[in-house]
Amino acid sequence: MMTITVDLDTRSYPIYIGSGLLGQVGLLDPHIAGRDVLAVTNSTVAPLYLDRLLAMVRPQGQAARAGRVESLVLPDGEAYKTMATAGAILDALVGQRYGRDCVVLALGGGVVGDVTGFAAAIYQRGVDFIQVPTTLLAQVDSSVGGKTGINHPGGKNLVGAFHQPLCVLSDSDTLRTLPDRELAAGLAEVLKAALIADAGFFEWIEAQAASLVGRESAAVNHAIRRSCEIKAEVVAGDERERGRRALLNLGHTFGHAIELCAGYGQWLHGEAVGAGIGMAARFSARLGWLSAADAARIQSLLERLKLPLRPPQVDAEAFLAAMAMDKKVLAGQLRLILLPAIGNGRVTAEFPLRELQAFVRAELGAQ
Amino acid sequence: MMTITVDLDTRSYPIYIGSGLLGQVGLLDPHIAGRDVLAVTNSTVAPLYLDRLLAMVRPQGQAARAGRVESLVLPDGEAYKTMATAGAILDALVGQRYGRDCVVLALGGGVVGDVTGFAAAIYQRGVDFIQVPTTLLAQVDSSVGGKTGINHPGGKNLVGAFHQPLCVLSDSDTLRTLPDRELAAGLAEVLKAALIADAGFFEWIEAQAASLVGRESAAVNHAIRRSCEIKAEVVAGDERERGRRALLNLGHTFGHAIELCAGYGQWLHGEAVGAGIGMAARFSARLGWLSAADAARIQSLLERLKLPLRPPQVDAEAFLAAMAMDKKVLAGQLRLILLPAIGNGRVTAEFPLRELQAFVRAELGAQ
Repeated sequence: MMTITVDLDTRSYPIYIGSGLLGQVGLLDPHIAGRDVLAVTNSTVAPLYLDRLLAMVRPQGQAARAGRVESLVLPDGEAYKTMATAGAILDALVGQRYGRDCVVLALGGGVVGDVTGFAAAIYQRGVDFIQVPTTLLAQVDSSVGGKTGINHPGGKNLVGAFHQPLCVLSDSDTLRTLPDRELAAGLAEVLKAALIADAGFFEWIEAQAASLVGRESAAVNHAIRRSCEIKAEVVAGDERERGRRALLNLGHTFGHAIELCAGYGQWLHGEAVGAGIGMAARFSARLGWLSAADAARIQSLLERLKLPLRPPQVDAEAFLAAMAMDKKVLAGQLRLILLPAIGNGRVTAEFPLRELQAFVRAELGAQ
Repeated sequence: MMTITVDLDTRSYPIYIGSGLLGQVGLLDPHIAGRDVLAVTNSTVAPLYLDRLLAMVRPQGQAARAGRVESLVLPDGEAYKTMATAGAILDALVGQRYGRDCVVLALGGGVVGDVTGFAAAIYQRGVDFIQVPTTLLAQVDSSVGGKTGINHPGGKNLVGAFHQPLCVLSDSDTLRTLPDRELAAGLAEVLKAALIADAGFFEWIEAQAASLVGRESAAVNHAIRRSCEIKAEVVAGDERERGRRALLNLGHTFGHAIELCAGYGQWLHGEAVGAGIGMAARFSARLGWLSAADAARIQSLLERLKLPLRPPQVDAEAFLAAMAMDKKVLAGQLRLILLPAIGNGRVTAEFPLRELQAFVRAELGAQ
């Protein structure tokens, strides 16, 4: 087992990464002993892993622990990342009369983690929660850093809270049951981490692409670890995204517009991020920031990771409007994360808006 | 104008207190210049004060400020302190496509402040907001300290966030239009502040009770100021209520049960707190903590402030169940704020539960 620490002063926490962690009795005891627990998961993950998680939190033998253990199974899918679902979790907590000292566990992918973390953030003005991610995307990205939230009909993640978990437990064995599309979606965030911060890691991914797609344990564990290290380092320097943390959104402004315009749930978040990374690379090249050769390397790697390179053919004006709703818009100024080089992301508003408009219209075949 | 600072490190903020502050052009400029603003109020307050507030935030003359100013008028009443109302505020923010740098103003009493502050806390994971309280209760208590929230069918304020305002603007002239019941409700929180922390202030209230009920400016301004000072001092030492901040809940565990059992909206929050203070005083005396003479002084002052001394005659078991749902329950242990003396509150679980049950049954005429 590897342990990475997210260094956030009084809110610091460990990420446990390894094979076979789910079901290891005792591992979570330092965080939950004696406390009431609600485990939240979805209908896909519950039959696979819920029992193993519950075995870790149920009182053992004659232990004096008095905490109660309950679970809640949500429907599966991005369509349920809503206030109504957060409300169902709150209802369960109130229904059990859980106090401020309870602990909420989020077992599943990014949707379960985001909506459960949000409910924990607002129940009694904040109770503790633990992330137990079971998808690659959640293990390398969404479970780390404390962003929680839900979607609004007007845009993704427009409602939420910063709420750091007590710990993150990433069992890479859970990836064995992950559908191919979801594996690829997670690899998009691995690629993102490399592109913004570590050219050497990018080269490692180029070399290991087949092993990653083939789910070889050593390669997958290293990818999770290095992605978490990069994210932890960025988050520690800027917990509330006043500046540098926005780097983690490489590909996301384009990606969110793809998800919105294609209709929530049609594209996986990571697939949209993959195509968004492709767009960010091409736009960086169009502006003369990135060499054509490096843009081509990025696109080639996206292909080898089984990710889409391009957005769907949706209406260009609707796409631009969706980009303008992105949370990274500050005082009406659209900022993007662009690439001066592989391994070096930059948050910037220094591009002509007309160039962006022309680029989006060209990408979407509108001219 | 008096200014009190709530000292919370990077989240410190000023409370401006005085007569005629609403409408003073320039006063809010340091906080809002150039930013998009949404002013939220209710249908009772809007015709009285919304124009004066908007005059303070609209760009003046040829100013280069580009921020937009919008307003949203909610229905009036505790019944609207709900997720649906928070959702309406979020819809307005999304509908205007306001970015992370917008500012939300809460003009009104505790309900408007709590629900608007909560919406600001979760919109885009937190945007700035300003409290402009127009009731005595909000001016002396709920606008200060960063607690925001909404009610759940299972209990008051069970959902919410800690979210500190940019500043608080308390114009005591707004109290001229306040109904008598609401004035008394605010005086309950003034009395609470004195009881937990300042015996001299309690004596001042005894001496000035008639002036306070008569809304004399000098007395009211002093009451607001001293209450805010006490609250600011307590909050600065314990922003997230891990310990001492719970003192501010004197009368509130009983009060919340009164509100719930009587049916939300039948009792004003401050009225329930008044009766809750009466109960806390009598229970403190029953346990031998407080002298009978001091308990009588407290009850006499409640009467002179036009506050109820006793709970309504509701079912004692339902009342006890409602108390157990209070957020101050930690690991199943009910804590109360009791009074060893006037001016000295204590957060404690050191009382026999049977004594509390017998006390509540006696108060409610159940035996």
